[in-house]
Amino acid sequence: MEKLTLLYEGKAKKIYQTIDEEFVLVEYKDDATAFNGEKKEQIIGKGRLNNEITSLLFSKLHVAGIKTHFIGKLSETEQLVKRVAIIPLEVVVRNVIAGSLSKRVGIEEGTELDRPIVEFYYKNDELGDPLLTEDHIDVLQIATKEQVSLLKEKALKINEVLLSYFLGLGIKLIDFKLEFGVTTEGDILLADEISPDTCRLWDVQTNEKFDKDVFRRDLGSLTEAYTEILHRLGGQIA
Amino acid sequence: MEKLTLLYEGKAKKIYQTIDEEFVLVEYKDDATAFNGEKKEQIIGKGRLNNEITSLLFSKLHVAGIKTHFIGKLSETEQLVKRVAIIPLEVVVRNVIAGSLSKRVGIEEGTELDRPIVEFYYKNDELGDPLLTEDHIDVLQIATKEQVSLLKEKALKINEVLLSYFLGLGIKLIDFKLEFGVTTEGDILLADEISPDTCRLWDVQTNEKFDKDVFRRDLGSLTEAYTEILHRLGGQIA
Repeated sequence: MEKLTLLYEGKAKKIYQTIDEEFVLVEYKDDATAFNGEKKEQIIGKGRLNNEITSLLFSKLHVAGIKTHFIGKLSETEQLVKRVAIIPLEVVVRNVIAGSLSKRVGIEEGTELDRPIVEFYYKNDELGDPLLTEDHIDVLQIATKEQVSLLKEKALKINEVLLSYFLGLGIKLIDFKLEFGVTTEGDILLADEISPDTCRLWDVQTNEKFDKDVFRRDLGSLTEAYTEILHRLGGQIA
Repeated sequence: MEKLTLLYEGKAKKIYQTIDEEFVLVEYKDDATAFNGEKKEQIIGKGRLNNEITSLLFSKLHVAGIKTHFIGKLSETEQLVKRVAIIPLEVVVRNVIAGSLSKRVGIEEGTELDRPIVEFYYKNDELGDPLLTEDHIDVLQIATKEQVSLLKEKALKINEVLLSYFLGLGIKLIDFKLEFGVTTEGDILLADEISPDTCRLWDVQTNEKFDKDVFRRDLGSLTEAYTEILHRLGGQIA
């Protein structure tokens, strides 16, 4: 599949037009960023790892009946996906308190929640991706009430699938961020990526972190952590 | 009514025990603070104005069928209220985008909302009174789902009463903050104060601000602004 015009360049991925209007090509970059781009580094191999891990997880979700934009892996760093209009919300599911929620409510990282919760953040770098309530989303017409309720339902279903899948691999899924897109037919599909860039993944036994917090907090080698996740998922990198 | 032990001192008020377990005495201070206490000033007369304005508005709400903690004004700066356990939520109602919501979503101050919205902030100075979602409130057991739904209902009803009352006085009620408390019998009462410290109040014709933004943004004399509100409410200060 040939890459045509660059449609969009984000912090971790580039999106290219293809000859087919219905599909776009996603290229995973080696750039690692944190704190809304304030911390930035090139980490060779990161793009390949996230492409591989996302491909495995989206295939897993497809089998579990979750509709995603994912069509297939094209190369070490590229995948083909359905073209969608991204809903400008970062949909965060949390099983355990960590990161920004720990800071927001002053409760120690690692505290289990009684039930998973879903949060919505406004996908807007300039505003620093602020937390929104469902009323904000509705009244500012970022998404309809029906869409928000669908997003929550889908996010919790995805959490169910991934939580038990990761647990079987000795990994606690602490929290993760999803993005969704709307097709021209109006279907809502899971889009973007699911990788250690967008999840918190802790070893069940040791609580060792195998996710972007390794980079954010300078805890060691990002590629070693991400490779550990890939191996546990049964994947390999040439 | 005699002031006994000081039970609590906040940024704008002191709460004293009285000889009756069921009631406490509220004393309005002349302190003005903003930005979580970073900006601070003593403004002579502010306590009297807010005591007077709150007393008038709580009486108005009582007549409209809203249950409040307010019993009566005792002196220029003091009032007697029912003793309640404050629910640690700042309940904010917004009719027009201003202040922190304008910054959060990047929409210009003064933009009308299609309908009023209610937000909940965690009453916690150390954490900077962060925005919470209803899921946060539920899962962190800050209040029950039933309480949250009651608080929203009460807040919107109070908004209805105050919005039309102020409009009749040539004032747009942009937004305001409420606090609620629970009595020993389990009743939820409106508590705290409603004053230009806790509301945004703009002149209908000129958009002139008659509220704490005058202090926050150095727009002129706070006491002149608050006195204008008191006069429009039909109140006087000796």
